[in-house]
Amino acid sequence: MLWEKIAADKRARIEASIPQEWRIKTKPTEDSVMNFPKTSGIMSAEELAITESSATDLVALMAAGKLTSVAVTTAFCKRAALAHQLLNCSLEFFPEMALARAKELDEYLQKNGKPIGPLHGLPISLKDQCRIKGLETSMGYVSWIGKYDKENSVLVDMLLKAGAVFYVKTSVPQSLMVCETVNNIIGRTVNPRNKNWSCGGSSGGEGAMVGFRGGIIGVGTDIGGSIRVPSAFNFLYGLRPSHGRLPYGKMANSMEGQETVHSVCGPLTHSIKDMRLFVTSVLAEEPWKYDSKVIPMPWRQAEAEVIKTKLGSGGLTLGFYICDGNVLPHPPILRGVETVVSTMKKAGHTVVEWTPYKHDYAVNLINGIYAGDGGTDIFNTLKESGEPAIPNFKNLINPSLPKVDMNELWDAQLKKWAFQSEYLEQFRLAEEKLGKEIDAIIAPITPTAAIRHNQFKYYGYASAINLLDFTSVVVPVTFADKSVDKKQEGYKPLNDLDKIVQEEYDPEAYHGAPVAVQIIGKRLTEERIMAIAEEIGRLLGNEITP
Amino acid sequence: MLWEKIAADKRARIEASIPQEWRIKTKPTEDSVMNFPKTSGIMSAEELAITESSATDLVALMAAGKLTSVAVTTAFCKRAALAHQLLNCSLEFFPEMALARAKELDEYLQKNGKPIGPLHGLPISLKDQCRIKGLETSMGYVSWIGKYDKENSVLVDMLLKAGAVFYVKTSVPQSLMVCETVNNIIGRTVNPRNKNWSCGGSSGGEGAMVGFRGGIIGVGTDIGGSIRVPSAFNFLYGLRPSHGRLPYGKMANSMEGQETVHSVCGPLTHSIKDMRLFVTSVLAEEPWKYDSKVIPMPWRQAEAEVIKTKLGSGGLTLGFYICDGNVLPHPPILRGVETVVSTMKKAGHTVVEWTPYKHDYAVNLINGIYAGDGGTDIFNTLKESGEPAIPNFKNLINPSLPKVDMNELWDAQLKKWAFQSEYLEQFRLAEEKLGKEIDAIIAPITPTAAIRHNQFKYYGYASAINLLDFTSVVVPVTFADKSVDKKQEGYKPLNDLDKIVQEEYDPEAYHGAPVAVQIIGKRLTEERIMAIAEEIGRLLGNEITP
Repeated sequence: MLWEKIAADKRARIEASIPQEWRIKTKPTEDSVMNFPKTSGIMSAEELAITESSATDLVALMAAGKLTSVAVTTAFCKRAALAHQLLNCSLEFFPEMALARAKELDEYLQKNGKPIGPLHGLPISLKDQCRIKGLETSMGYVSWIGKYDKENSVLVDMLLKAGAVFYVKTSVPQSLMVCETVNNIIGRTVNPRNKNWSCGGSSGGEGAMVGFRGGIIGVGTDIGGSIRVPSAFNFLYGLRPSHGRLPYGKMANSMEGQETVHSVCGPLTHSIKDMRLFVTSVLAEEPWKYDSKVIPMPWRQAEAEVIKTKLGSGGLTLGFYICDGNVLPHPPILRGVETVVSTMKKAGHTVVEWTPYKHDYAVNLINGIYAGDGGTDIFNTLKESGEPAIPNFKNLINPSLPKVDMNELWDAQLKKWAFQSEYLEQFRLAEEKLGKEIDAIIAPITPTAAIRHNQFKYYGYASAINLLDFTSVVVPVTFADKSVDKKQEGYKPLNDLDKIVQEEYDPEAYHGAPVAVQIIGKRLTEERIMAIAEEIGRLLGNEITP
Repeated sequence: MLWEKIAADKRARIEASIPQEWRIKTKPTEDSVMNFPKTSGIMSAEELAITESSATDLVALMAAGKLTSVAVTTAFCKRAALAHQLLNCSLEFFPEMALARAKELDEYLQKNGKPIGPLHGLPISLKDQCRIKGLETSMGYVSWIGKYDKENSVLVDMLLKAGAVFYVKTSVPQSLMVCETVNNIIGRTVNPRNKNWSCGGSSGGEGAMVGFRGGIIGVGTDIGGSIRVPSAFNFLYGLRPSHGRLPYGKMANSMEGQETVHSVCGPLTHSIKDMRLFVTSVLAEEPWKYDSKVIPMPWRQAEAEVIKTKLGSGGLTLGFYICDGNVLPHPPILRGVETVVSTMKKAGHTVVEWTPYKHDYAVNLINGIYAGDGGTDIFNTLKESGEPAIPNFKNLINPSLPKVDMNELWDAQLKKWAFQSEYLEQFRLAEEKLGKEIDAIIAPITPTAAIRHNQFKYYGYASAINLLDFTSVVVPVTFADKSVDKKQEGYKPLNDLDKIVQEEYDPEAYHGAPVAVQIIGKRLTEERIMAIAEEIGRLLGNEITP
């Protein structure tokens, strides 16, 4: 069969999975669809309230028997159906299966008088790398359509044990290796705040879905920004944990088996408390007993408490940088970093400039690692169906590149290790100078606010952190504002790429686009960085902590 | 210069580093040199007592000011000098530097009234992969002779901070990739218990040195048995921690940058209490702040306590296997495993048979990983000086092999991960059946007691555990005994390799050779497995716990 027919059939099956009564009669013409659910007539007031609540509150209400999982699941299924019709963000949608599961959970609670686990009844949306037995994982590849999974991903199993309900698998870019979301199956996923902006990628379907509140906690993956960029572009919190903290076992992937820089999975959420709910729930299932790459490291509340103690006394020590030396961020992002810096200073914390150490070197090194097989794996997967490469990807990995040879790979791995350890030395030197520990670094995650389509050019703010395997949490800060974020005049670009990125800035076009920062900590500092991110969110007014 | 001349010069420099008064006039002709120090006339009674003490006792005495580091260091330098003359086990010997450091530490203690750290004043011997600023690391390669280190390995720095004294770097086999110790610089290192037996490898110099008590704690490395085999062959305890627990940063290595299966470092000791002293001392220095591959995981006493609680009530659950399905161990080893099994059963613990899961597959997989570059790295290093490959190594890695291609590597890495996770499943299934957690597995570490030279053929008992990245502690059990360990008659070999290994057994030749087992735990279970190993040692009478 022609690849176009296979893709069209899959597309039709996704459409058909949406019940008639959830279908949109007349699509809105506005750039933003954020208010559509309220005016659609499809969702009830209760359903709107549920989907605009928090996961933490929802699981509490369900555990107390004050809300059923069927009600919650119905609400999210409906809103997800709207999301897909408006944003084109789903690769699998299965409300019937979800509602059957929700019903079972409701019955369990009624029978046993207690929830099955900490996520009892909660719908969680999954990036289409997560495998669920019986469903398809196409991951945006036409050639994978029609392959039905024989087992669950480890994370899926852990979430099921904790009580989660699955209802949707969201879209990804072909190959996963770009920070926008386009594939030859459903086309492009757009940003709910403005259809002219990207939802980010590769967990872009999650970004759009959770940003639109068609989901409350989304599962993404990140090898070069793929959780953090969609979080940033959709005004969400996003966690890129260090490798080995959360289970990636039995997920689908591009370039499977590549271990020089590991892809990791993590949540996209509306708040740190929901992020914490997700992480603590997964860790409570002891994923290291199922996935050999997971470190046996339970949630360390003592680590969070170290930060909480410092918060009380304005005792945090934070570094920050506004430019990594490769590409200067657009004015809204510069303002975003400065806003966080001044907010933290005002709260009495110490905030000092951090000199990004050899980020140019890091970005080059990781780009070479991404291209280790010269694109063989991805191009073979495309060849199977005959579908073409998406344009964003064509320029990134060049199929005519030779493969990296084994000794070259070992050399790159040695360089990676040396660079990581040199970066730790930078911390030690700075800490010696300051006489205290640096708790985190505030930095851009992208050089731009939610970007216009096909304009994502520079991955380095994200990918340098992947090379370091540092923990990073994205915190939404503000929105681009044409009245203050003026185009810088007379700026001399650092290089050709910087020039291209700078030229893309247009205060009018970016007005209102989400602006975020990332909070970076050393390896495996999830508890600490989440606590810092929570405080930043609280001070910015972007997170309500009970 | 001809490689033979370079090697001869290095050899002469090692000889010259031994002071006249420590030189042996008449070398003994006996197979065993274990009693030589007592009768040599070179060591005083106090020096003999010091070297036959424990590290734990020595650091306590030094910390209390009851013993000087100069006295302790002198004693070990002398005994190490004897060791080298008898066993040929040193590649660097630097007693002057050691005694200068010891003197400084003694002065520090006198001035400050307290030790500099938990290892204050304690001599520690290092495998010649550890770099010490200003010294050579030849690692048995002629081409590396004359290259003086510009910085310390991370572990060396951590040990220095903890107060250790360095005095010797011990021999290794050329390439490190064999479990005997032969190189073209100093030739072969032999076993102190019998010069016809191997000291094991690749940390064979450490095995011989610590076995002879020329060292009290030795640092080795292990990618396929290299800590555990020398421990076993020298009646020592040896720890192969999981990757990421102890720092390997800035060590020399063969095939540097190879990360599919990581080499790890760990101690060879006479007791678990000394092993614990080493591990807790290193972790207390927070090595994760220096080496990016180290997991920020301090010593977890609570994990050790879990085991101690079970010990009180005969509550351990142990698996065991006597054969991995590839090669049957010799009778002394079978008796060794059975001794541990019956000892633990007698103490009231549950001991059940463990079915080794696809160990043949694991051994094949890891052999392919070892040969990833077709021997290029090692052969290039040999070519530089023109020295020939040692015979043991020639058959192991074939230089005419093609390199593994990037996609093949990714495939192998995927298989590794899947195998590791399947092995965890085997644990879960067995635990479900038993209704309790399996605390450890008792298994052979080699198919033979301390082996005759050039007879080490089968690495699988060790290397399968490396592939799994499980924690393993070698426990000395007993000695081969010709009166009970009879050659099995009419045995049908499992395969050609098994046949070769079986044919090597000769009760007479192996009489008295050390017999050990390994105690295996899941990944990163160092605290638990050390506690179990300590109990086994205590019950066997091989470890005195205060």
